[in-house]
Amino acid sequence: MNNQTKKIDLPLKIMFLGGIGEIGKNMAALQYKDEIIIVDCGMTFPSVDMPGVDLVIPDFTYLVNNHSKIKGIILTHGHEDHIGAMPYLLRDIKAPVFGTNITLALVEGRLRENKMEGFVLNTVRPKSVISLGNSFKVEFIHVNHSIPGSCALSITTPVGIVFFTGDFKVDFTPIGGVPTDLVRIAEIGQKGVLCMLSDSTNIERLGISMSETSVGRALNNIFLDNLDRRLIIATFSSNIHRIQQILDLAKKHKRRVAFRGRSMLNVADIASKIGELKYDKNILVDIDQIKDISDNNLVIVTTGSQGEPMSALTRMSNDEFNKVMIGAMDTIVISASPIPGNERMINTVINNLYRKGAKVIYESFAEVHASGHGYQDELKLVLSLVKPKFFIPVHGEPRHLKKHAEVAMSMGMSPQHIYIGDLGDCIEFDSRTMRLGDKIVAGAVLVDGLGVGDVGQVVLRDRKHLSEDGLFVVVLGIDTRSQEITACEVTSRGFVYMKETEELIDEAKDVVMQVYSRLDQKDLADWNLLKNIIRKELKTYLFSKTRRNPMILSMILEN
Amino acid sequence: MNNQTKKIDLPLKIMFLGGIGEIGKNMAALQYKDEIIIVDCGMTFPSVDMPGVDLVIPDFTYLVNNHSKIKGIILTHGHEDHIGAMPYLLRDIKAPVFGTNITLALVEGRLRENKMEGFVLNTVRPKSVISLGNSFKVEFIHVNHSIPGSCALSITTPVGIVFFTGDFKVDFTPIGGVPTDLVRIAEIGQKGVLCMLSDSTNIERLGISMSETSVGRALNNIFLDNLDRRLIIATFSSNIHRIQQILDLAKKHKRRVAFRGRSMLNVADIASKIGELKYDKNILVDIDQIKDISDNNLVIVTTGSQGEPMSALTRMSNDEFNKVMIGAMDTIVISASPIPGNERMINTVINNLYRKGAKVIYESFAEVHASGHGYQDELKLVLSLVKPKFFIPVHGEPRHLKKHAEVAMSMGMSPQHIYIGDLGDCIEFDSRTMRLGDKIVAGAVLVDGLGVGDVGQVVLRDRKHLSEDGLFVVVLGIDTRSQEITACEVTSRGFVYMKETEELIDEAKDVVMQVYSRLDQKDLADWNLLKNIIRKELKTYLFSKTRRNPMILSMILEN
Repeated sequence: MNNQTKKIDLPLKIMFLGGIGEIGKNMAALQYKDEIIIVDCGMTFPSVDMPGVDLVIPDFTYLVNNHSKIKGIILTHGHEDHIGAMPYLLRDIKAPVFGTNITLALVEGRLRENKMEGFVLNTVRPKSVISLGNSFKVEFIHVNHSIPGSCALSITTPVGIVFFTGDFKVDFTPIGGVPTDLVRIAEIGQKGVLCMLSDSTNIERLGISMSETSVGRALNNIFLDNLDRRLIIATFSSNIHRIQQILDLAKKHKRRVAFRGRSMLNVADIASKIGELKYDKNILVDIDQIKDISDNNLVIVTTGSQGEPMSALTRMSNDEFNKVMIGAMDTIVISASPIPGNERMINTVINNLYRKGAKVIYESFAEVHASGHGYQDELKLVLSLVKPKFFIPVHGEPRHLKKHAEVAMSMGMSPQHIYIGDLGDCIEFDSRTMRLGDKIVAGAVLVDGLGVGDVGQVVLRDRKHLSEDGLFVVVLGIDTRSQEITACEVTSRGFVYMKETEELIDEAKDVVMQVYSRLDQKDLADWNLLKNIIRKELKTYLFSKTRRNPMILSMILEN
Repeated sequence: MNNQTKKIDLPLKIMFLGGIGEIGKNMAALQYKDEIIIVDCGMTFPSVDMPGVDLVIPDFTYLVNNHSKIKGIILTHGHEDHIGAMPYLLRDIKAPVFGTNITLALVEGRLRENKMEGFVLNTVRPKSVISLGNSFKVEFIHVNHSIPGSCALSITTPVGIVFFTGDFKVDFTPIGGVPTDLVRIAEIGQKGVLCMLSDSTNIERLGISMSETSVGRALNNIFLDNLDRRLIIATFSSNIHRIQQILDLAKKHKRRVAFRGRSMLNVADIASKIGELKYDKNILVDIDQIKDISDNNLVIVTTGSQGEPMSALTRMSNDEFNKVMIGAMDTIVISASPIPGNERMINTVINNLYRKGAKVIYESFAEVHASGHGYQDELKLVLSLVKPKFFIPVHGEPRHLKKHAEVAMSMGMSPQHIYIGDLGDCIEFDSRTMRLGDKIVAGAVLVDGLGVGDVGQVVLRDRKHLSEDGLFVVVLGIDTRSQEITACEVTSRGFVYMKETEELIDEAKDVVMQVYSRLDQKDLADWNLLKNIIRKELKTYLFSKTRRNPMILSMILEN
């Protein structure tokens, strides 16, 4: 990495709007002189320090400011963290969109939910090559992942090839039968690759990942071991190959299948329409009809594998879904791993299922899930085939990027040819050089209800404060002529249990009255000052009484 | 388990006030006729749905109501989840306390922090036998765990022996040199045990746990691999054997040791005073003096191995502790595993340390931590030695208890002789029978600041509401004679960014005015009704504008 003083912009830029130095909302842009293409446009779910936020999307400022240069939007695959912000991007940016059929079908679904129509989505297939502007040729390369239609991208630019692995694993026995196109990846490597950007998710896991086919074998054993019992399998709705295996096993073991959960129904519908999910319609049964089907003839395939509070499985585990009451005759399979941060939620669901007497099978005990991301040796394999001049690990947190860089160095790459990026980085290239350019605007835009970006640090700080110690409100009525207090009302929420507060409230009123009586004319002239003094005194009083610091609002009404 | 209709109370009862069906706040009580003894009295940290809560303790109602019957409080070991609620219990209950020296030293520390003095704490040693009342003889049995002075309990009662394993592992090469007293456990098993209650934490992990000595070897290699670098090791302050190993390694490798973090300093002080931690005082260096010591001569031993927001390591990772600025010459060792639910926090700390260029070593890559809880084969070993008539798995969530029961069945125990308990259960025994009695009051009491139990569901619900959508306050001044509105003030917090709210606030005032003008005399007579109508209309208005549901407070001032 060349960090010397910059004389002139190098012609090719790779800019990171997400997915580097963080998990989620993957998005990058390539710019060659006056032409820009966008790779992926994902969202992420809010972290625990963003209460009330619905989702988090990238900051599009740079793209909006350079709108006219944008030649196209390329999508590697249809996961939310790669396509979820598309409805927000397409409100601001008009540009052609390219992806495989399932990817675009999922984008279309998202647009429809947002009542957005009339966009041209261009379907590509693996091996398709598209030209964008005068500078970019994009080739789509089939890779295995936990959703069909996943692609790596080989992007030919005037200064060399940029290779995005996308999210991938190397599965030699995938569902659908086609392994990651290692032959084509090797050919591209032979042509010479300027820069490779590679998935880093599972760099910490040694060896190679389990094949999706092994999950099928494990599930088959579960069907065999639970002949008399109702089966409930929770998995990601987007894991269409997993769902295909469950449908095939259900057919083999003569069970009907009921889908449960909005996204499960939605994706199953989309995927079967375009032929990515194949099954006999008669095998399906509506969840409203399952009471007519005996336990041993039924599999329920449901969302909620992460223990999400409103998800179908969580509601079943809490007796909140009266069509599926969990009991001793149920075997529940969690066919997924917890996404980091969700461990506690899924654990609660598992415990509640056990409390109802059900049998629960999850990863600790059985091979009921395979990761969609290659382990360290798969990442090494692709790096060794592509042999890039420069290497940027992506799709990972700093710990993963750093480890991936170390692995690349252990394979002989020079540290100067590796860059560990961060959000907003702009990396510039010519055919011989990689160096860090000026940062671009990048960050997290919070979506809450209809608001996009109106929840910022101040609002979040206030929400956090309110959540920890609650609220204490004092309202003074003041007669403007006599400057006397005509009324004083106090209330609180989320502070202490109301019955306990009566004394506190009376004493707080006394505190306010005393403060007021001590003030001189000057203080009374400035109501902001008055409010501040009241807040400060109340804060001291409440803390001394409770060791808590509620948010204190003081308001004044003139009459 | 005999669930038949109950005719008469059986004489011996085991009651669960915590630590069963949940993790943390371990507490049980044994009652024989009119005599009660208490085993452990732990606290737990609040879950994410308890914002602002400091800690959670058991509900002592049953014990308070039966105060006069209590003959003693027995502590198995000094971890917070076994002793942390002692200051709260001792406010309500006067009874002699028994535990090993380190356990009682930690209890004393807790009492001192709470300005509580004058309690008689009775030190026992392994093999001690104490008599409590006429019914109970308690023998303390040495076990290995992640804190010294841990004991199993063999409690002889008139109807048979009750055996508590406490938290334990079987370490054949422990620090201190004394393995779990399997000989004595076998002898007690030979005498015949009525009921055993066993640790279930690691039942899901097969085989046997790593020895604490292996951690020392791994740490020694880290000292050797990082000769030129500053070492920072984060671990639990209560893991005194781990700290002993670090002190010994520091001496061997000629490094000075600086402790960092309040509980680290506190426990090191307590443990060295009673001889549980042995080191040359000259090896220590105050954290304020470390600037005089070169990187290669220093080890910082710190709290924060769980990424707790206010902990020493977290503050270092955020540049908030200017005496230790993290950089490229630092190697940080996280010598602990994440407690379930803390994964995200510790991950954030690790990422921030990487961002500063430091090297970070954690469990995924190195044997830098050994669990204090035995794995499945250790649990089987002790079960096979004790051979109890009845078995109650404890110290675990439902998933662990269920699995432990299955393991016991696989070893030949009858399902009728195993009980999977829940909070508040009272299990009754005579010498031949175990059956479920009437539930006792049990639950979680929340401690927030000075308040014990004043934060309940209503307060938590309000805090959650406030945290998710914030607050909208409207105050009306009303002239009582004319019934006209003299003033209307509106404010919000944590709702939308203030600049965006000006229009909302103006329109909200209009909404309120319109509502008011439409009301008839009857409505105006009832201010609660008026407030409700205003809230309802504002809710509809704000939701239509924002798709958010802030908490709405409407207040009225008379003048």
